[in-house]
Amino acid sequence: MILIGERINGMFKDVGAAIKDKDAKVIQELAKKQAQAGANYLDINVGTAAADQEDAMKWLVETIQATPGGCKAGLCLDSQKPPVIAAGLKVADAANGIILNSTPLNKKSDEQILDKYIEMAEKAGPKASIIALTMDKNGVPQDVDTRVAIAAQIIQKAMEKGFNTERIFIDPIILPVKVPNAQVQPGSILAAMDQIRFLAEPAPHMTIGLSNLSQGAVERGLINRVFLAMAISHGLDSAIVDVLDRQLMDLVATSEMLMNKQIYSDSFLKVYSAG
Amino acid sequence: MILIGERINGMFKDVGAAIKDKDAKVIQELAKKQAQAGANYLDINVGTAAADQEDAMKWLVETIQATPGGCKAGLCLDSQKPPVIAAGLKVADAANGIILNSTPLNKKSDEQILDKYIEMAEKAGPKASIIALTMDKNGVPQDVDTRVAIAAQIIQKAMEKGFNTERIFIDPIILPVKVPNAQVQPGSILAAMDQIRFLAEPAPHMTIGLSNLSQGAVERGLINRVFLAMAISHGLDSAIVDVLDRQLMDLVATSEMLMNKQIYSDSFLKVYSAG
Repeated sequence: MILIGERINGMFKDVGAAIKDKDAKVIQELAKKQAQAGANYLDINVGTAAADQEDAMKWLVETIQATPGGCKAGLCLDSQKPPVIAAGLKVADAANGIILNSTPLNKKSDEQILDKYIEMAEKAGPKASIIALTMDKNGVPQDVDTRVAIAAQIIQKAMEKGFNTERIFIDPIILPVKVPNAQVQPGSILAAMDQIRFLAEPAPHMTIGLSNLSQGAVERGLINRVFLAMAISHGLDSAIVDVLDRQLMDLVATSEMLMNKQIYSDSFLKVYSAG
Repeated sequence: MILIGERINGMFKDVGAAIKDKDAKVIQELAKKQAQAGANYLDINVGTAAADQEDAMKWLVETIQATPGGCKAGLCLDSQKPPVIAAGLKVADAANGIILNSTPLNKKSDEQILDKYIEMAEKAGPKASIIALTMDKNGVPQDVDTRVAIAAQIIQKAMEKGFNTERIFIDPIILPVKVPNAQVQPGSILAAMDQIRFLAEPAPHMTIGLSNLSQGAVERGLINRVFLAMAISHGLDSAIVDVLDRQLMDLVATSEMLMNKQIYSDSFLKVYSAG
């Protein structure tokens, strides 16, 4: 499981304030804690509070990379604005991997934005990947088939450009259960994943922004955990999650064991969190 | 979700002792508690302690049916010996439903035991169903395809006999994760379920004896919950479980909500446990 820690996001109060005050300590503490908890990547999202988003992204990347004692997680630059991603890339050390998060296939204006993300990732080196959303100029699809069709177009585009499909993370876009008439129910997302995993060889990764599912709902942890277990059994191999949530991490370890990615031993939870 | 409460089983110390001492109160307490907790059926297994298994089955059924205040759950007569099932059927009130649990397709001796269970179920009336295991005279299959093939043979047999496929619960047989070289991994069971659900129209039910999965393991509750969530997302619509386990029941409610069997509301856990 490729886990992307969600906490360095300006939408969280503590992070929003730290960005505004350039308080490196708060950010570095979160970077360190998430990496220790098992994050393979740290999501970095400047949120909406920053006056200058490019500057804020640059500062966040530099600050995380300057974490005392180092921080071995890769960087997941989270913005739908290419200049903000570019600002992060300018200062990012690609050694631990970089993910560009995220882009739809194209935009209402017909802008071929996925192309731009692929170009930026190519330039950032062989360890740079992209999260591509199954949405296009028409927005988030209403049905399973359109989601899969867009995923296929994303993969086709990557292949045309010689961009290895293993460097693509398809995000089928989870919507909050709380939203009445959510365009696609969680069960449909799983049905889409059942097809997306077979669209290419090597298979693209699949990822979701898990916490979005339970936005505004009660029993958030329970809802997140149950859906994550389901999704892992349908081929999900990455997720943007709160890696500091011990129950969620134990669930990931258990899911991996049940899906035969880890052999059962009486210490399987410890083995997972150590490895 | 059709939930079968697992607790009235002679393998549990308290129940084993109650069977031996003909202590009706222990059994009736468990019947009442499980029905209140949401069990649609109560599994009834005399275990190995009973001197006369037929007599013990008869006593258990009569005792449960005499529960003060009544007990609205159906009965799931659990034995691989037709005479023990028959002893239960002789006294069972079929009003709340009956499940005959369980039979392989056939036996090493070539005995067509599924036929016998179908005949017994027919005789017990239209509310009697059967749990049929995906195993045959060669034992538990080593691979997904053989499991599915046996499930197909079970369904074919039911159809030949004019036994509605909705009255069949296919049990793909979960083995303990703790057993080295378990013949089929949990992930393979899910893959089998993906196919079994489409073998007939109307689809057969699918059930599992969940607790078997975590037999002898640490973190039993967690392992059971994670696998149950996964299995529900692959079409499992019944399970033999500990309905007195609150965390497990909350997981079932959440799974049903995520799979769109129940609409989200802030009181979805309460709505489920009430209904």
